[in-house]
Amino acid sequence: MKFARFRAEGATSYGIVEGDRITKVTGSLFRNPTRTSKRYKISEVKLLPPVMPRQAWCPGLNFASHLHMSSTVAGHAALPKYPQPWHKGVNSLIGPGDFISIPAESKSGPHYEGELVAVIGKTCKRVSPEEARGSIFGYTCGNDVSEREWQKGDSSLWRAKGADTFCPIGPWIETKLASSGVDMVVRLNNREVQRANTREMIFDFGTIISYISQFATLRPGDIVFSGTTGDTSSMKPGDVVEVEIEGIGVLRNPVKAEA
Amino acid sequence: MKFARFRAEGATSYGIVEGDRITKVTGSLFRNPTRTSKRYKISEVKLLPPVMPRQAWCPGLNFASHLHMSSTVAGHAALPKYPQPWHKGVNSLIGPGDFISIPAESKSGPHYEGELVAVIGKTCKRVSPEEARGSIFGYTCGNDVSEREWQKGDSSLWRAKGADTFCPIGPWIETKLASSGVDMVVRLNNREVQRANTREMIFDFGTIISYISQFATLRPGDIVFSGTTGDTSSMKPGDVVEVEIEGIGVLRNPVKAEA
Repeated sequence: MKFARFRAEGATSYGIVEGDRITKVTGSLFRNPTRTSKRYKISEVKLLPPVMPRQAWCPGLNFASHLHMSSTVAGHAALPKYPQPWHKGVNSLIGPGDFISIPAESKSGPHYEGELVAVIGKTCKRVSPEEARGSIFGYTCGNDVSEREWQKGDSSLWRAKGADTFCPIGPWIETKLASSGVDMVVRLNNREVQRANTREMIFDFGTIISYISQFATLRPGDIVFSGTTGDTSSMKPGDVVEVEIEGIGVLRNPVKAEA
Repeated sequence: MKFARFRAEGATSYGIVEGDRITKVTGSLFRNPTRTSKRYKISEVKLLPPVMPRQAWCPGLNFASHLHMSSTVAGHAALPKYPQPWHKGVNSLIGPGDFISIPAESKSGPHYEGELVAVIGKTCKRVSPEEARGSIFGYTCGNDVSEREWQKGDSSLWRAKGADTFCPIGPWIETKLASSGVDMVVRLNNREVQRANTREMIFDFGTIISYISQFATLRPGDIVFSGTTGDTSSMKPGDVVEVEIEGIGVLRNPVKAEA
């Protein structure tokens, strides 16, 4: 089932997406979403980030194919022995269709990173990988936008990956996805620039979430990225970037220079 | 004026602290806090973290006196040319009197770091240092609890400084503090173990907040730490750690082993 968050008639709601329609639901998304009789055409509503996480977690290097890019940025190239999570600033969250805004300080433009994103549905503390898998509410598409020069020069990723608008997610949460063996594709101006499959993840979502939960409590609505793959390239004003994930849909964002 | 967040009679409220009493307020803390006729003895209420930030920012190395400790942990010892902020996980937030809980995986015990903490009162985006100073609602005491082995071994600070209970703040927000020239003292089991003055900050709060705001929007309630000073030492179960800041008060937390 596909759950979207949207704005229509001056109100923000969750809804179930079926074809080109969205049916408004009431109740808690994670406990008891309940259909109402209110339906809209998707084209008539403004889709929002499908969840407003308290925290957004990324796993660090999680695909062997990203080793080369990672080594040019971080100056080392070893596969991690355990997950190396970090916080992506929630200030950077935007939804489908929203602009990725490039600050003037970014000389070469940030890179796309197309990723699968797990949405936590239950509180996780000291859970096993198996329990962690059962705590995932669903999945959405994410773009871990990354400014490589800042990533190289700063001592944390706060700005390189957490500048405003650097965290597009959406267009909705798919609750029925089996997260292994899923194709993730990125297109820049309709040209395919990234393709990978989640079976190549070094640590699967259950392992990442379980590991984080040994130290930090995850809450319903928190999001966890898959990590990215291969080499990436920069985006410039006027570009349109799409992250398409098999079984979910397409997250599309235009790119502009910050006003 | 001192604003505390507290729990009494089954409800969570803000209140104004005067002597040993707290007067409940209604309205938005940042816009229009309004006194009610409801008063409690402070000893009769449960003080909570004085704010629930969307994000908690720390400035990286911000006192020359912390260079030695920083170099033993991070392996380098250069004063930063601009602030190096990072995200302290908001999952780690606790209030005055709450236990700092040491996970079994911490072999040598986390260190205290007594710091002054600014609470943002107005949205900040691309603000000047002067505007940033005007956007600070008030200040509280904070303990940037830090597990040095994880800090050395991990590629981010997510766990070393963001494990659950590693972010005590409180006991309340002082809105009348001039943040320069303020003494910050840490006592471990009544013995003074850290003493510094905010005039030694490499970047003042206005500079740090302005710099963050060039890239990331800060919101009312977000908190910004001063950075810590000197050398620090580890805490063990049974300890009591106090951060006392001139003009604010004492943040006291007992320490235990995680159950």
